[in-house]
Amino acid sequence: MLLKFTKMHGLGNDFMVIDLVSQHAQIKPAQVKQWADRHFGIGFDQLLIVEPPGDPSVDFRYRIFNADGSEVEQCGNGARCFARFVSDKRLTTKKRIRVETKSGVIELNLQQDRQVSVDMGAPILEPLRVPFDAPSEAITYPLEVRDETVQLAAVSMGNPHAVLIVSDVASAPVERLGPAIEHHPRFPNRVNVGFLQVVDAHNAKLRVWERGAGETLACGTGACAAAVAGIRQGLLQSPVQITLPGGTLTLEWAGPGHSVMMTGPASRVYEGQIRL
Amino acid sequence: MLLKFTKMHGLGNDFMVIDLVSQHAQIKPAQVKQWADRHFGIGFDQLLIVEPPGDPSVDFRYRIFNADGSEVEQCGNGARCFARFVSDKRLTTKKRIRVETKSGVIELNLQQDRQVSVDMGAPILEPLRVPFDAPSEAITYPLEVRDETVQLAAVSMGNPHAVLIVSDVASAPVERLGPAIEHHPRFPNRVNVGFLQVVDAHNAKLRVWERGAGETLACGTGACAAAVAGIRQGLLQSPVQITLPGGTLTLEWAGPGHSVMMTGPASRVYEGQIRL
Repeated sequence: MLLKFTKMHGLGNDFMVIDLVSQHAQIKPAQVKQWADRHFGIGFDQLLIVEPPGDPSVDFRYRIFNADGSEVEQCGNGARCFARFVSDKRLTTKKRIRVETKSGVIELNLQQDRQVSVDMGAPILEPLRVPFDAPSEAITYPLEVRDETVQLAAVSMGNPHAVLIVSDVASAPVERLGPAIEHHPRFPNRVNVGFLQVVDAHNAKLRVWERGAGETLACGTGACAAAVAGIRQGLLQSPVQITLPGGTLTLEWAGPGHSVMMTGPASRVYEGQIRL
Repeated sequence: MLLKFTKMHGLGNDFMVIDLVSQHAQIKPAQVKQWADRHFGIGFDQLLIVEPPGDPSVDFRYRIFNADGSEVEQCGNGARCFARFVSDKRLTTKKRIRVETKSGVIELNLQQDRQVSVDMGAPILEPLRVPFDAPSEAITYPLEVRDETVQLAAVSMGNPHAVLIVSDVASAPVERLGPAIEHHPRFPNRVNVGFLQVVDAHNAKLRVWERGAGETLACGTGACAAAVAGIRQGLLQSPVQITLPGGTLTLEWAGPGHSVMMTGPASRVYEGQIRL
């Protein structure tokens, strides 16, 4: 059969998106892996699948597969593309879309300017739940790494993040400290590492070393964690515009216990048809 | 306008192919560069364009653009995809297709088994024309590189190649010697470097360090140069099957002054439509 798909990206984090509401297909992990390889397939960071919901109170089921075929729980850049896709394909006329994911129900909001807002949930700050090995919760923690002591915040947005304040992202030691902190024994599930440069109270720059992937163009949960870390340290005030190598996101956070709202673009690149 | 394209590959060397016989569009270098980036565009090694011929004695004009937007002269893997494309799209019913390229007219032959044969032209063996700095033509030459002396053949297939015989491609010093030979002062235009393992008279394995690109999945001209180098040293006999990391090519060569015939697969991956 010929399967229709759309290639999209959110700040350069790129996706193959398949509508399995109006098309019927069985997609196996080996197939995902083959498609993910640009030289022999399509090439993407993640495959996003739109399915009918299991729960009738939500609009869709949203599934995410990594390039290796494994199913994952969370992708903020993907969620924005998901919302644009179901709207562009007229799978819904709603502007407020509720979707069921592997980690619970999330709400996506299509804005007037074609940007999309996503409720990313409340940050987890207790070290045990990040998880990060520390005796008690603090705003920042000292960490011994590569014969120096760095000061970092530890925040989970469903996935663990360490955030370091730097004076200049361009010269930040992403390649040197990123992998060393990622694999530090005090982060038992490893960690994503953000290097945050505060420009003013509402503007910052960020580079993220992603767990298992290295530096990426844009990490949505990393931007959320960085905004939370900056606001808690009194360096930033909500709303915060964070510029990543792939583009800019707006983050809003009212403080502990509240959700982080992430707003940003979702771009459609091309329509494709592939034999399954 | 919506522009139709096809994504194809020859042994993993991947292409965006556009029919500008039945579609009309102006494609600028900046557009090629944007499309070539997988994260924000489509992603490919080269863009292949099918145009009506300037010369009425040939069937098409074949233009090749690198990912940086520059126009190039030769791509063997691309030529096979070009032939499959014009046949699949019914732009011709011929099995023997003559195309005009930047470096002259080439002939492409569609085989019964859907493989494609391409006349790659005669190899150039005179050192001055490779170009390679050597006092006179020889089958192999010693070269001092990184405090050792290696023995290599120097062959041009329109682009320069150095070919070294190795006992095992898997452990060949591609990363260590590839860049050192590429930039060796005796190759004034730099050089592609092939590491050839002879399995028997008709079978070999090859890895290629490509000039300006590093190791690639499959280099068509590199396979031609390696077959010529192996045959001239009496290690191989035509026809030769050469297995590259991306797959296998068949090379035929009757000796100096004759063309190298290269036969291999051309695969269509998907059909796409993108806004221009």
